[in-house]
Amino acid sequence: MFSHNSTHILIVTCDAQTGLVAAWTTCLSAAGGNILELNQYTDLENNKFFMRIAFISDTLPSSAGMETLARCFNAQWHLYPAGVRQKVVILVSKFDHCLADLLYRWRIGELALTPVAIVSNHPRADTQATDIGSVPFYHLPITKSTKPEQEKKLQTIIENTGADLVILARYMQILSDEMSNWISGKCINIHHSFLPGFKGARPYHQAYTRGVKLIGATAHYVTTDLDEGPIIEQDVERISHADTPEDLIRKGRDVERRVLSRAVNYHLQRRVILDGNRTVVFPD
Amino acid sequence: MFSHNSTHILIVTCDAQTGLVAAWTTCLSAAGGNILELNQYTDLENNKFFMRIAFISDTLPSSAGMETLARCFNAQWHLYPAGVRQKVVILVSKFDHCLADLLYRWRIGELALTPVAIVSNHPRADTQATDIGSVPFYHLPITKSTKPEQEKKLQTIIENTGADLVILARYMQILSDEMSNWISGKCINIHHSFLPGFKGARPYHQAYTRGVKLIGATAHYVTTDLDEGPIIEQDVERISHADTPEDLIRKGRDVERRVLSRAVNYHLQRRVILDGNRTVVFPD
Amino acid sequence: MFSHNSTHILIVTCDAQTGLVAAWTTCLSAAGGNILELNQYTDLENNKFFMRIAFISDTLPSSAGMETLARCFNAQWHLYPAGVRQKVVILVSKFDHCLADLLYRWRIGELALTPVAIVSNHPRADTQATDIGSVPFYHLPITKSTKPEQEKKLQTIIENTGADLVILARYMQILSDEMSNWISGKCINIHHSFLPGFKGARPYHQAYTRGVKLIGATAHYVTTDLDEGPIIEQDVERISHADTPEDLIRKGRDVERRVLSRAVNYHLQRRVILDGNRTVVFPD
Amino acid sequence: MFSHNSTHILIVTCDAQTGLVAAWTTCLSAAGGNILELNQYTDLENNKFFMRIAFISDTLPSSAGMETLARCFNAQWHLYPAGVRQKVVILVSKFDHCLADLLYRWRIGELALTPVAIVSNHPRADTQATDIGSVPFYHLPITKSTKPEQEKKLQTIIENTGADLVILARYMQILSDEMSNWISGKCINIHHSFLPGFKGARPYHQAYTRGVKLIGATAHYVTTDLDEGPIIEQDVERISHADTPEDLIRKGRDVERRVLSRAVNYHLQRRVILDGNRTVVFPD
Repeated sequence: MFSHNSTHILIVTCDAQTGLVAAWTTCLSAAGGNILELNQYTDLENNKFFMRIAFISDTLPSSAGMETLARCFNAQWHLYPAGVRQKVVILVSKFDHCLADLLYRWRIGELALTPVAIVSNHPRADTQATDIGSVPFYHLPITKSTKPEQEKKLQTIIENTGADLVILARYMQILSDEMSNWISGKCINIHHSFLPGFKGARPYHQAYTRGVKLIGATAHYVTTDLDEGPIIEQDVERISHADTPEDLIRKGRDVERRVLSRAVNYHLQRRVILDGNRTVVFPD
Repeated sequence: MFSHNSTHILIVTCDAQTGLVAAWTTCLSAAGGNILELNQYTDLENNKFFMRIAFISDTLPSSAGMETLARCFNAQWHLYPAGVRQKVVILVSKFDHCLADLLYRWRIGELALTPVAIVSNHPRADTQATDIGSVPFYHLPITKSTKPEQEKKLQTIIENTGADLVILARYMQILSDEMSNWISGKCINIHHSFLPGFKGARPYHQAYTRGVKLIGATAHYVTTDLDEGPIIEQDVERISHADTPEDLIRKGRDVERRVLSRAVNYHLQRRVILDGNRTVVFPD
Repeated sequence: MFSHNSTHILIVTCDAQTGLVAAWTTCLSAAGGNILELNQYTDLENNKFFMRIAFISDTLPSSAGMETLARCFNAQWHLYPAGVRQKVVILVSKFDHCLADLLYRWRIGELALTPVAIVSNHPRADTQATDIGSVPFYHLPITKSTKPEQEKKLQTIIENTGADLVILARYMQILSDEMSNWISGKCINIHHSFLPGFKGARPYHQAYTRGVKLIGATAHYVTTDLDEGPIIEQDVERISHADTPEDLIRKGRDVERRVLSRAVNYHLQRRVILDGNRTVVFPD
Repeated sequence: MFSHNSTHILIVTCDAQTGLVAAWTTCLSAAGGNILELNQYTDLENNKFFMRIAFISDTLPSSAGMETLARCFNAQWHLYPAGVRQKVVILVSKFDHCLADLLYRWRIGELALTPVAIVSNHPRADTQATDIGSVPFYHLPITKSTKPEQEKKLQTIIENTGADLVILARYMQILSDEMSNWISGKCINIHHSFLPGFKGARPYHQAYTRGVKLIGATAHYVTTDLDEGPIIEQDVERISHADTPEDLIRKGRDVERRVLSRAVNYHLQRRVILDGNRTVVFPD
């Protein structure tokens, strides 16, 4: 059923209880699995257990055995082959620094993804600084009145390409609740502020007005609650009073693309597990 | 009038206009002043000019000459001797890590201040981890009903000690509007979050609940607008999903005391100039 | 044999092989152990396996069972009760910022240690800024000719106090090879540079002369190879051309004490495992 | 002589003496110059004065007036129009992340440069991940015996294109002393370590072997002394024991390109002044 002699990722989540690590690792061990990296976290406040195991094996543990364990512990489990590239749709507006960065990392083999479509509400001419090669580009303009129609087209692209992940790489448009729910857990946004500070529009202008001494960026899963989704990664950059909003936009580009690419990498490597509105992230 | 052969700090603020640096530095130069460090910032958006000059001189520029320049440019100016220690009242509650840090830095000569009083709403026994030496300690308990009375006592201490600066070193009490206005520009608070995120009470618990990946601290001047005063300094510390609120409190202590001591140092060295609700900070 | 119903730390190291996690966690699980935190690392280059498990249990796994596993896998294992404070001897010279910091963190319960002795080659008067309370202070002056004798006295103090760990908190003296070997793995030094840059004396002056843009600090285990011991923790601080060597010394104090206290905390919590001249650190 | 109504940068360096700021700013003021940003630094140890002034003016100060001042203070001065793009030759080998980053920043207008040539010792096929557009690409293979010949060709390209700056964007070749001297002060290299740690070849492998906890990158001017040139900018990235040399190479790419682009930007904006083997950098 599974490919042989290869690396796989096993994710297990359930209520915290005694014997969890022993049971699952014994199951892997019985099938000859050799653990390369095991990360485990117990959320004592909510009594939740989270585990990620990267292992290499000639023969994979039987699904039946895993199912038995899952019933026994009332656990959710997922087994992913580690080498498979995920299909990704990247949404962008006029600012293409995150897009360019993701594509470059893809080209040199740093991100295990395949870009299957780039969608923008602006024409191709607006992102000319980025070489998109042969990745299909879709121009889907949007207005208040055409939004439902535009999102339907977007949804069709995501379905037709078989995308595993949608990345809002400075898309600058708010997805409808329907759309947000539809791609829940599979859509990462980069917000150009250190959330929860400066939600909403023009965060760098807000940061300038408030006079903060650091700016930041936040990569999070998209939910219906704008800028309130589970945070995957954040980082900051020092600024000074002398920086205009335009300087902040410039300095922010670096931290935005750094944070987004890290979050995408963690997601692709199955290093992120949702825990309500928080995330468990086992960094590489 | 002024002490001879010593370092002074000149601060000049006014509307931006041609010739400002030339006029003031010529005035200093005419009196034999030798500039050690000149920092200048022009806020182009609001057409404001800010300058700080540290200089050494045998004879100081005449007040009359400075006054003439001030009238000419419609400028505010202040001349401070650099070697004078400012008198400081430190307010504290039960958490004394910022207090202990400030006192240690004072003892080894890192901060040019003289602590003239420590005031706490808790008895001395609650801050036993800190050696306060011979600095007078005042226990001013506070309740909702005794707040006006307590603040009056506090005000008396500040007046009687001739304090130049009040530091809220995790004081955990909100000053009344009257009190805030009375010490406006002379009172620095350390807030245990990266403002404007997590204003108000228990910010580390808020940070845990929101699932942020970095925590921070903010030193700002106190105004009547809670946690909205002009920010002097901020910094952050990386955390993970595995950190409980208690872990955040522990990890936060380091960044709180680092940020507060930097802000206090900048203030003491006249490196902070108010620009509306923002600050111009010329770091050392 | 072990105290009941408490948290323990199990450390296992051996050659990498299949079934390690399963075997040891099954052993813990059989004794009713509940894993709070499991960290595991496989050094693929050298085929080494490292594991740290924090667990809570009413009854502890039998030593016999663990011994059987150890023989089976040719593994080294150690079981430590988590709540026990380690006895620490702190060595210091004239700069006491690291000493003051360690003692403050001890007083507020942040570091699970008991300071059993402070030893300085300078008289008590040189570290007056630090409140050492009732911790015994030993003045052991040292000269080239008295070094063997001084180290014998130091050794006696370490033995008599039953110290588990020796911290060189800016001790500024080089231990002899005999001494270094005698406390190998139990002695942490803080070096005031980002090693391997600026080994040896006056690193801040070296840093100034070289014109670096960041300074750093390094906490490492002491070995006979000066400044070459296994690194536990490092951090840096941004500086500028305007910083004199004295400014670097001042700015360096913050990063030194931060790095040292982190390293000591990791060591006390058994989060550091030696891997030749490298360390495996499972951070909290 | 100069273009009117535009921003210019004035750089002044000389021995420290009284009246410098006053004299030069008075000269600018007399010509109607309005100072936008003035940065000044006095190296007290070596009694050197460094000043950078960005100013806007309808008419520029006469060269004669500046010359008089220069003679008076025995000063070096340079006046640069701020809006002129510098011509840049970028040298690269097989790793093109710095090249790709520089070109992207150029395309979106972040770096005020014009790339006039890309030179590689590898064929174009080796840097296919980077879109070089219409920038001329020269393949200049190099061997020990052809090095003088290759450098002559390189020199010709630099001369023919009228390049103002040469960037070694992970060029991986050591320039000869003749070449280093010829482009002294006009050639920036990015070294993939936190200098002075890990000079020479394969610094990430050195870092792995030494077991450091942070890796870094250093941008410096090229001199005949390998990896010893004046440092312009440095930064670091946290790593762990679990990172292989390949992980370090991957994580290092981010910090390398960030450090290099910052250094190039400072150089282009005339924010870097040489001070022996150190640099004075007035950051933006």
